[in-house]
Amino acid sequence: MALDRLIEKIVTMKNPTVVGLDPALDLVPEFIKAKYYEEYGQTLKGAAKAVLEFNKGLIDALYGVVPAVKPQLAFYEALGVDGVKAFYKTVEHAKKRDMFVIADAKRGDIGSTAEGYATAFLTDVFPSDALTVNAYLGTDGVMPFVNACKKHDKGIFILVKTSNPSSGELQDRLIDGKPVYELMGEYVAKWGEEVPGKYGYSGVGAVVGATYPEQIKELRAKLPNTFFLIPGYGAQGGTAKDLAAAFDSKGLGGIVNSSRGIIAAYKKEGCLEQDFAGAASREAVRMREDLMKEIGGISL
Amino acid sequence: MALDRLIEKIVTMKNPTVVGLDPALDLVPEFIKAKYYEEYGQTLKGAAKAVLEFNKGLIDALYGVVPAVKPQLAFYEALGVDGVKAFYKTVEHAKKRDMFVIADAKRGDIGSTAEGYATAFLTDVFPSDALTVNAYLGTDGVMPFVNACKKHDKGIFILVKTSNPSSGELQDRLIDGKPVYELMGEYVAKWGEEVPGKYGYSGVGAVVGATYPEQIKELRAKLPNTFFLIPGYGAQGGTAKDLAAAFDSKGLGGIVNSSRGIIAAYKKEGCLEQDFAGAASREAVRMREDLMKEIGGISL
Repeated sequence: MALDRLIEKIVTMKNPTVVGLDPALDLVPEFIKAKYYEEYGQTLKGAAKAVLEFNKGLIDALYGVVPAVKPQLAFYEALGVDGVKAFYKTVEHAKKRDMFVIADAKRGDIGSTAEGYATAFLTDVFPSDALTVNAYLGTDGVMPFVNACKKHDKGIFILVKTSNPSSGELQDRLIDGKPVYELMGEYVAKWGEEVPGKYGYSGVGAVVGATYPEQIKELRAKLPNTFFLIPGYGAQGGTAKDLAAAFDSKGLGGIVNSSRGIIAAYKKEGCLEQDFAGAASREAVRMREDLMKEIGGISL
Repeated sequence: MALDRLIEKIVTMKNPTVVGLDPALDLVPEFIKAKYYEEYGQTLKGAAKAVLEFNKGLIDALYGVVPAVKPQLAFYEALGVDGVKAFYKTVEHAKKRDMFVIADAKRGDIGSTAEGYATAFLTDVFPSDALTVNAYLGTDGVMPFVNACKKHDKGIFILVKTSNPSSGELQDRLIDGKPVYELMGEYVAKWGEEVPGKYGYSGVGAVVGATYPEQIKELRAKLPNTFFLIPGYGAQGGTAKDLAAAFDSKGLGGIVNSSRGIIAAYKKEGCLEQDFAGAASREAVRMREDLMKEIGGISL
């Protein structure tokens, strides 16, 4: 089962971190952009080529430290067909380096349409290992993804309690005395029964933001078999202390995302931009230590 | 404002129909697939080329009858990078024929990520006129799209009450005595105030399924300034009578989607598959008459 593989990687590397490959153009080092803009002009194609080189450099520097990457589809689609090609090649390169790849696409639709998205991201069309899913449409909008997980050894993460300030507008509202995120969490647990895993966590995970520590604690208690993808660490304000409750007594139960904090570490560090990959790696090591200090040990 | 343009087209053509370009491969005529599979083998590229030829034939047959098309991203992403290229060329071709193009991608994310999706679908990267949006994340996940609508003369349609059987799992649940779809509808109306239109409808529309006539009626009464994108007619069981309440006294207020019913009309009609475009056009005329019988007149 796909999330078993992720868990094994996390344990081997003693690092529950996923690096968000969200290459907004202002984060791509100037020297890389200059190279491709010279060759292709300041075009979508030039930008997409620059993004791919940036990503490959990051992946090559990070695969020994972090188990997973999470490319965010929006940044690739914003560069058109060439951007989507850069996404494909990024996934391919990460797989070559044996990283676990979560396509952060937040897809959600029904019937044959959901099957289309599942074919795209949960087979080998774009060879990612897992996909984020928005389940506003209900079970019809999730089962095609769950079926693809079973058939193709993949995983999904469903939006439950997102890290952004306005997530509560809908997600915190009460239905029969229970917040929407909890209702969604219960569905996630139910859908997950279809894809059991050998370490107690199913193949249907949940997105739970590091910025809401109380909800993390509550959801961990209510969803003992649901693995969490945790955005919001660092730039958005979530700390290792805030998210420690996501992890069980073995140190399992979640993976924490950092995007900008790692991929643009060279800016914060103030090193030469040519050393962007080194800076990313140093920040990834720092983050691992920061997380592990709160989580304690980690084992199967 | 983009939805004003859509409304004007609907009035000119006396037809509130949008054709869903959802080219599942089993709907693409065999003779088209054979042609490209011979040239490219049975590959994603061959399939994508076949899809594009199918779409172009449909668009050329339909642009005199229907004002808009709605390509469903999933079917293109399922064919990888070549599929996304076919999506781009489909949008380009529809724009050349002066059709209004709704990218049905149900995107939704926050901050710079939402801006990325808005750049992709609400500028000229993929030159669509409007985008469907999933607002589970709240206002943070919608404002970047609203801002892009204002800046680039585009529109969005937000999922409110979807047409599928399980949509009620979350959407019908009560929050302070009010169903989630109504709460979402109220947000849509509020976000729409940022993008007013000259015919009384804002640039922030709502997706409301034809399969739920009671909810259509209720939402039309509560959201007088919100234009509806209405899926679920035909194959999913919604009838013209079911959705008539979406329209105001001038016959404005919504656009009704049909996908399979039109693009695969040649199968139902039993004509030669070479006449797929003719069959689509005949079915589009039949659907227009079916709708207009219930809606009555239509004028600005």
